[in-house]
Amino acid sequence: MSQSKLQPPRGTRDFYPDEYRQREWLFDHFRSVAHQFAFEEVDAPTVEHAELFTRKAGEEIVDQLYHFELHDRHLALRPEMTPSIARMVIARAGALRMPLRWFTVTQNWRYERMTRGRKREHYQWNMDIWGEPSVSAEAELIAAIFALLDAVGLERGDVKLRINSRALLEESLREGVLRDRPEAFAPLCVAIDKLDKIGADAVTRQLIDTDGAVHLDEAAARFVVAMLELKDLGEAARLAPAGSQALADLERLFQLLDAYGVADQVVFDASVVRGLAYYTGIVFEAFDTGGELRALCGGGRYDQLAETLGGKPVPAVGFGFGDVVIGELLKDKKKLPLLMRPVDDMVFAFGEGERPAAIRVARRLREAGRRVELTLSGGKLKRALADADRVGAARIWLLGPDEIERGVARVKDLASGRESDEKLEDAGS
Amino acid sequence: MSQSKLQPPRGTRDFYPDEYRQREWLFDHFRSVAHQFAFEEVDAPTVEHAELFTRKAGEEIVDQLYHFELHDRHLALRPEMTPSIARMVIARAGALRMPLRWFTVTQNWRYERMTRGRKREHYQWNMDIWGEPSVSAEAELIAAIFALLDAVGLERGDVKLRINSRALLEESLREGVLRDRPEAFAPLCVAIDKLDKIGADAVTRQLIDTDGAVHLDEAAARFVVAMLELKDLGEAARLAPAGSQALADLERLFQLLDAYGVADQVVFDASVVRGLAYYTGIVFEAFDTGGELRALCGGGRYDQLAETLGGKPVPAVGFGFGDVVIGELLKDKKKLPLLMRPVDDMVFAFGEGERPAAIRVARRLREAGRRVELTLSGGKLKRALADADRVGAARIWLLGPDEIERGVARVKDLASGRESDEKLEDAGS
Repeated sequence: MSQSKLQPPRGTRDFYPDEYRQREWLFDHFRSVAHQFAFEEVDAPTVEHAELFTRKAGEEIVDQLYHFELHDRHLALRPEMTPSIARMVIARAGALRMPLRWFTVTQNWRYERMTRGRKREHYQWNMDIWGEPSVSAEAELIAAIFALLDAVGLERGDVKLRINSRALLEESLREGVLRDRPEAFAPLCVAIDKLDKIGADAVTRQLIDTDGAVHLDEAAARFVVAMLELKDLGEAARLAPAGSQALADLERLFQLLDAYGVADQVVFDASVVRGLAYYTGIVFEAFDTGGELRALCGGGRYDQLAETLGGKPVPAVGFGFGDVVIGELLKDKKKLPLLMRPVDDMVFAFGEGERPAAIRVARRLREAGRRVELTLSGGKLKRALADADRVGAARIWLLGPDEIERGVARVKDLASGRESDEKLEDAGS
Repeated sequence: MSQSKLQPPRGTRDFYPDEYRQREWLFDHFRSVAHQFAFEEVDAPTVEHAELFTRKAGEEIVDQLYHFELHDRHLALRPEMTPSIARMVIARAGALRMPLRWFTVTQNWRYERMTRGRKREHYQWNMDIWGEPSVSAEAELIAAIFALLDAVGLERGDVKLRINSRALLEESLREGVLRDRPEAFAPLCVAIDKLDKIGADAVTRQLIDTDGAVHLDEAAARFVVAMLELKDLGEAARLAPAGSQALADLERLFQLLDAYGVADQVVFDASVVRGLAYYTGIVFEAFDTGGELRALCGGGRYDQLAETLGGKPVPAVGFGFGDVVIGELLKDKKKLPLLMRPVDDMVFAFGEGERPAAIRVARRLREAGRRVELTLSGGKLKRALADADRVGAARIWLLGPDEIERGVARVKDLASGRESDEKLEDAGS
């Protein structure tokens, strides 16, 4: 095999033991927070029918699909978890007790250009609530995000969450520039999501583009882009129609976030719309306050997705939180732990004659729940002691002919250096 | 979307909460046993260069590859973990402390016809030891398999492990029917692995086939197939050359397995060769004693794989243990647990006015490490009580206007039915 083929495919990762332990440390926090919020874990196939993911809204995520034909089926590696979750909810809609609180920790793929914090695969923690129309669902999810940030050791203030409401934007545009063209709203959101990346002028041009799905006139496009500048809910309120439900929802959400103790880390930001076409209400994304990195997570309400996929309408809201960007932030903040290999006992036989006795000792210790490294060939005692020290083992059990004859093992406590003889049949008790 | 597209692709699985909990129960046992044996978990990309998996030995696993061209790369979903592990070991060969004890719990794909215990994806627990040439490595791995079977609650006797040595078979044939054609040995193993499935006559025909990679004459083919009948190590020994290392290894392995306390569940069986071309020494597979199911797991020594892939030679041995067949066996034996959703406390606000206070109670309880379901809309108390009962919550916290005014929550202990008032600020303490 060529040497280049001995590397993982570009944009994908190997996880050696140190990296795997860091990954699991993060995933354990994802799971632990989700369980504290009484969410249940689910999973769906890595490879789905491509049709589940293809939508006609010009989203990056669809352009970047890993998809292929195989045995006359058009399949795709999932680029995100939400459509699979929606499919599962629809398939058992009658039998599931609502509201559902589901979470996943799964790998997703997007074939994209790589930059810092952007690979072609990442793992993503998703939490979704199905069947709850009120913003108490959004509040619960946003609180879970901050619980995770606390759990991994970030400081309050390291991360800001920006919130907006597509419903508020839609209400404000419905009476004006999109009066007769409600179908243009989803692609409009996809276009303005690129504001940070490509700038106001390029977004304005996309909104005007007569070949595009939005094609506003220039004044309307400039009005939309100007609206996105608003960072104050009071100002945004003045553009909303009287009695706006979307505005009331946003205000209620901030009240609830205050009760969760996270309101001071959340800001209104009219430019947040998220790049996925299916969002319908509140949308949010979290960034490092330093502004160095891509979004740590993002989410929102997608009340029409089930219907779009052919199911009955079910209100839903969720977020996705990747493993790569948080990893970068934790590294920058020196919060990423270096985790040792967990070994309690080492068992060392001086020669092959002592191996059966060493095996019996290891077996007793393991049956007692201890994590035991049994050396597999005689080798050097010095090396075994150095290894035991390096992995942080508590004890090493040494078995030579002399010990066997006396029915004991020589046990060295590696912290104190103290040695003693232990009867072979007492190991593990 | 069409209704058929709302199902997972044929041969793949959704994991709803109950099924996910069963899956994690099994995976937790995989991990716990691996940690008791001081193995370290690793992971590699789900999608690899197809070249890593394609070998020219007529193996089923290569014919059944999920592979595709994308952006000018020939990629494949991994059908097994071993080649990825080998790639990782080769890439850092100098820097890794041998012997390596690595394990994985990952999903693999094979596009095959579906029968009981056979899907197009499965999860597989792999344990591999790299850098140890002696059978103490095989013994450690086989002991781990039995530790897992014990851990999930199977009885001793429910499963038998069958052992053979390809090296012994090769030694026995080298002086005879394969004297001038050592390269025919790997495809010969692939052919005779099908004995159980297609029968002795069909295997004999494949060994004779002049278009095949083996093409023995008929007498030689019949001799090989007859050898596979041997179920007694003493008989097999008579066919081995004098001073056979392979025979000595097998005998030593049985001694060590006795020290591990599992020898009575292990039998010699000359027909076991495994279907993968890369095995070179001891091979083994475990079956339910009832003979109802496919192999629960299989493995063996593959000392030449690193070299085949372009690395330096490193001795290696490992096994793969799937999640589907053990699931079937546990179901048959009524050992598969039905696991409840883990919730400690429910918190219920009678109306929207009490929601902020309910949130504060939930927050305090969660900060104290409890798993708390907060009801997200007023709803009916009766339903909340029934839900709390159903999920097995220990307590439900009830907050109405009257309680708020008094600065308390009404707390019902669901086991005893006893109710009491708790000060709101004491929740979680």
